[in-house]
Amino acid sequence: MSFQNFFPIWDQLQPHQQRQLLDSLTFQAVKRGAIVRGGNADCAGLLLIRTGQLRALVYSEEGREITIYRLFDGDICLFCAPCVISAIQFDVTIQAEKDTEFWSIPSEVYQNLMAESAAVANYTNELMASRFSEVMNRMEQFMWKSMDKRVAAFLLQEASIEGTRELRITHEAIANHLGSHREVITRTLRDFQGAGMVKLSRGMVTILEPGKLEALGI
Amino acid sequence: MSFQNFFPIWDQLQPHQQRQLLDSLTFQAVKRGAIVRGGNADCAGLLLIRTGQLRALVYSEEGREITIYRLFDGDICLFCAPCVISAIQFDVTIQAEKDTEFWSIPSEVYQNLMAESAAVANYTNELMASRFSEVMNRMEQFMWKSMDKRVAAFLLQEASIEGTRELRITHEAIANHLGSHREVITRTLRDFQGAGMVKLSRGMVTILEPGKLEALGI
Repeated sequence: MSFQNFFPIWDQLQPHQQRQLLDSLTFQAVKRGAIVRGGNADCAGLLLIRTGQLRALVYSEEGREITIYRLFDGDICLFCAPCVISAIQFDVTIQAEKDTEFWSIPSEVYQNLMAESAAVANYTNELMASRFSEVMNRMEQFMWKSMDKRVAAFLLQEASIEGTRELRITHEAIANHLGSHREVITRTLRDFQGAGMVKLSRGMVTILEPGKLEALGI
Repeated sequence: MSFQNFFPIWDQLQPHQQRQLLDSLTFQAVKRGAIVRGGNADCAGLLLIRTGQLRALVYSEEGREITIYRLFDGDICLFCAPCVISAIQFDVTIQAEKDTEFWSIPSEVYQNLMAESAAVANYTNELMASRFSEVMNRMEQFMWKSMDKRVAAFLLQEASIEGTRELRITHEAIANHLGSHREVITRTLRDFQGAGMVKLSRGMVTILEPGKLEALGI
């Protein structure tokens, strides 16, 4: 599969725009754990993920983390290049959750395309609205849901992404997704284990009763 | 001042687009407290505020409220017509905080303009990014800041909007801005009063020491 197949509005570009885009691309690979873009960092380019998984996170002043959304195969990382839209006045950090391969589109090339093409500008609108929707959802969870509900929902989401109920994840990592502390997550998971919903072992959470977690997480 | 003066990219529209826009406008006025758009409601049109003040809020399942951003003279209420961007998958309620006059642009007219004009599409991008930035800021406050810091920041923002330190606002209203309960706000304000930062009277909070509130709110 080539860039042309991955870029959703390829057919709506004019030939000179397609050429400009292809000529400017670089293909890159990063390892799991790599910071693809730091907060307050440069604005090299938008990424189109060929394969892998990224997460967007924000930090508190004390260094706590929270995941605000995730990106998968075929997704575009717009906030990897927030400078393409000047009104974006916040910084997210983008980290690879898995080994990830992507095309990088230079910011100025993308900005030119947006200025020229209503199709590209409207597509960018839709992209931003998707991320906005995810952040609103995350915010509503954070504001109104208790920690046990949020942990339950997170475990089910992980199981769905990984396609297994045996999750290789530490309590620390769960805390960093949910903006919490390791101790709080450990206590919550032990309660779940006490209720027979999960089994805990070193670096691993096994879901035993997804139905019960789901009922809790709603 | 006419619509032409208020609409920021008027000069970037073509004559037929300008005419289409003007022909479709309606001018309306609502009273303070009115719900301009309910969550899950229709998608009649985008509003351009001539004069007044709106707030965008979300509700918890138990009916608690939180203000996620505010709009003032000259602002456009994009989320009054979320249907213009299909990837917007969340609902906000828009309420008038003051008597408000606005022009309403029908959704389908605006959608046509976006599809035709890269300028309108990119302007819409900037609008959405501004709201997104405000929501991110609000979310970070909610996630990482204690209630006393948030109340202090809110009082200072109110003073700045109203141009006075004598704020006509109930504890209930502050709770509804901050996603909290009246009792919590009353306790916090009494602590502030005990520290000499504010004076409380019926339906009123007077700021005595803005410097101290500011130091607290950071």
